Amino acid sequence: MEQQHGQTGGTRSRSAVARRSLLGWGGAGVALGAVAAGGTATALHSSNASAASDGAATGQAVPFHGAHQAGIATAVPDRLHFAAFDVTTKDRAELVQLLKDWTAAAARMTAGEGVGEGAFGPIPESPPDDTGEAAGLKPSRLTLTIGFGPSLFDKGRFGLEERRPEALVELPAFPGDKLEKARSGGDLCVQACADDPQVAVHAIRNLARIGFGKAAIRWSQLGFGKTSSTTPDAQTPRNMFGFKDGTRNISGTDTEALGKHVWVSKKDGPEWLVGGSYLVARRIRMHIETWDRTSLKEQEDIFGRDKRTGAPVGKAKEHDEPFLKAMLPTSHVRLAHPDANDGIRILRRGYSFTDGTDGLGRLDAGLFFLAYQRDVRRGFIPIQRKLARNDALNEYIQHVGSALFAIPPGVRSKDDWWGRELFS
Amino acid sequence: MEQQHGQTGGTRSRSAVARRSLLGWGGAGVALGAVAAGGTATALHSSNASAASDGAATGQAVPFHGAHQAGIATAVPDRLHFAAFDVTTKDRAELVQLLKDWTAAAARMTAGEGVGEGAFGPIPESPPDDTGEAAGLKPSRLTLTIGFGPSLFDKGRFGLEERRPEALVELPAFPGDKLEKARSGGDLCVQACADDPQVAVHAIRNLARIGFGKAAIRWSQLGFGKTSSTTPDAQTPRNMFGFKDGTRNISGTDTEALGKHVWVSKKDGPEWLVGGSYLVARRIRMHIETWDRTSLKEQEDIFGRDKRTGAPVGKAKEHDEPFLKAMLPTSHVRLAHPDANDGIRILRRGYSFTDGTDGLGRLDAGLFFLAYQRDVRRGFIPIQRKLARNDALNEYIQHVGSALFAIPPGVRSKDDWWGRELFS
Repeated sequence: MEQQHGQTGGTRSRSAVARRSLLGWGGAGVALGAVAAGGTATALHSSNASAASDGAATGQAVPFHGAHQAGIATAVPDRLHFAAFDVTTKDRAELVQLLKDWTAAAARMTAGEGVGEGAFGPIPESPPDDTGEAAGLKPSRLTLTIGFGPSLFDKGRFGLEERRPEALVELPAFPGDKLEKARSGGDLCVQACADDPQVAVHAIRNLARIGFGKAAIRWSQLGFGKTSSTTPDAQTPRNMFGFKDGTRNISGTDTEALGKHVWVSKKDGPEWLVGGSYLVARRIRMHIETWDRTSLKEQEDIFGRDKRTGAPVGKAKEHDEPFLKAMLPTSHVRLAHPDANDGIRILRRGYSFTDGTDGLGRLDAGLFFLAYQRDVRRGFIPIQRKLARNDALNEYIQHVGSALFAIPPGVRSKDDWWGRELFS
Repeated sequence: MEQQHGQTGGTRSRSAVARRSLLGWGGAGVALGAVAAGGTATALHSSNASAASDGAATGQAVPFHGAHQAGIATAVPDRLHFAAFDVTTKDRAELVQLLKDWTAAAARMTAGEGVGEGAFGPIPESPPDDTGEAAGLKPSRLTLTIGFGPSLFDKGRFGLEERRPEALVELPAFPGDKLEKARSGGDLCVQACADDPQVAVHAIRNLARIGFGKAAIRWSQLGFGKTSSTTPDAQTPRNMFGFKDGTRNISGTDTEALGKHVWVSKKDGPEWLVGGSYLVARRIRMHIETWDRTSLKEQEDIFGRDKRTGAPVGKAKEHDEPFLKAMLPTSHVRLAHPDANDGIRILRRGYSFTDGTDGLGRLDAGLFFLAYQRDVRRGFIPIQRKLARNDALNEYIQHVGSALFAIPPGVRSKDDWWGRELFS
């Protein structure tokens, strides 16, 4: 591994040779340890208890290497930058090289280091390898998670049409959808989660920069507050309706539930996706001005929860088992509960967003819904079919963006790269 | 003061009478102490050393009451939600009542409490007084700072035309400006700064809700990372160009500099604005893709700083006094330095932003510039005149939004309200 160099300040050598060893940022030392520990095929995120504990205060690094990609079962930091890309090159080798370059950059950035030789090198006469705005910041539990959209497998593009997973369907049109093309789809996606939004934004920006001429951002979404948690002990966050709604999420340490509901198995196939998952992303606009004029009682009836405690109707505590028949047939909890959906569970990692104002003086705010699952045909699709038809919440929300991605397994080691199993 | 009520969970009384005493959120106890301490006319933000120290980790409250509004000289938390409002009512009394209602809500929210009787009351048959998404979150150093735009003083509106400060001019058109109407101007503004973006977003949303039918959001801007600091000991943050550029900002504890450059004095007038300030807000789009293809040497020449250390050209450390003649005549530091501007200084509180992607696949990112000053005619205007003509940075930036506000003095006590001096 290259030698690390602290920020000493003051004048510095302009020699390119000398600067090639002047790598890293302040604070990267700790992160390197994490990468070294995670850089073996035996370090699995989902079985790593420390990865699921809350390290927000320490700004620690989450191991990048493992059987599964980080950013799914790992703890959910509070900030998000999500980007969908169109692949603009037609050359398969260029795409493969991009994925290799992205993997190398992602391994460095999640460890708290700059891309390549960092923000200040390698030579003054060239643009620096890294854009620099995260220099000096902690790793901040940054995770970068890649996905492959259905369009990547189209015939005549990269020769992947035979490798398209059967479950990577086009999502059906649901009643009430008002999808904007400019906020939907994408050949690739990268989900960046971090405690510090500047770290998440920096990561997406630098991947976009590396992709110049090969892939371009199609749409992106910032999220400022998580609405679901994978750590069962943490306080459940509230969504923009003021409710706790991620209560019964799959825990990042519940290996059995993850195996049953999240990770693609050998039996599912295809082989290249084993250990991976499927991600559904939906931009859900909330009509918060209308909601805010609704009575507390009606709000609670709609969700099927007590607003203060998060407890299901008629129960005392948030985590009490709901009695579905006590709820209105149109209440959100009743319709979405696994007992009403043949036991189906999905792992949610959604974020609240506010993107300024629409043309009518209303906040453009809502939920950027992200959910991981083993098979979207036995996950999001049947649940959303039911919700779109019956959920009392529909009066207050509208789905305006939509995308589906196949999420490959983790990068096993330093020689591995995102998508190796798919392209080889 | 009303009795506080912890979150006990479980079933709760539906009696409206009983619930009227069920106020507050978890964690509000600490905050109330802060308000009580700050609730006297002698508690001045700018001379309060503890307010200027970094309390991010503890999530403490910043006193709302004082001679100056909080959010100017107080420490700069990392997240921003800024909103400009159009006043839609034509009734002066309604506007006054709105300002009183906003003041009461602001005092509660900055203390970590909900608006009115909170997110769960007062009675189930009505919409709750507060929207609830910040329930349970810490005060997070939330500050709310109000401003009055030039259009509020227009003849035939609220009878304020005689009270318009001479210095509340229309900003001139600067070379290179490409201002969008939908991101400029406003009758009122509220700047919400906080450690937790959900707390800042919640505050603007609830003020907008209180304003329904009287004032509507004209535009708003989220910021994810501060680019300037008022606490001299803190590490200077980096902007989206990867540079430390807020180095020589006015410190929140430098009473002399604040008196000279930030606070409106009796001599300046008008009387109602004494102890207040002027705020310039500029949305500055950064062409980061172009910048990222520029060599390190050129980047450093443009700023006049070492990118790694932030030191001025030829100097060793960030805080060393720059030798302006060693810099290119078009370098940013040289042009903006007080020595090149008759000693003019402004207090900057800008934030980096990223608002998704423009139609061309480029990140819509940049700097939301916020600067406070005693007189914009001897502050932002002459500095920007010079920068707009000469700054080498202009190749990489464009001002796309602009607004100017008069910032009234602080709310002195519980009986005082935002704008009392102006309207009485």
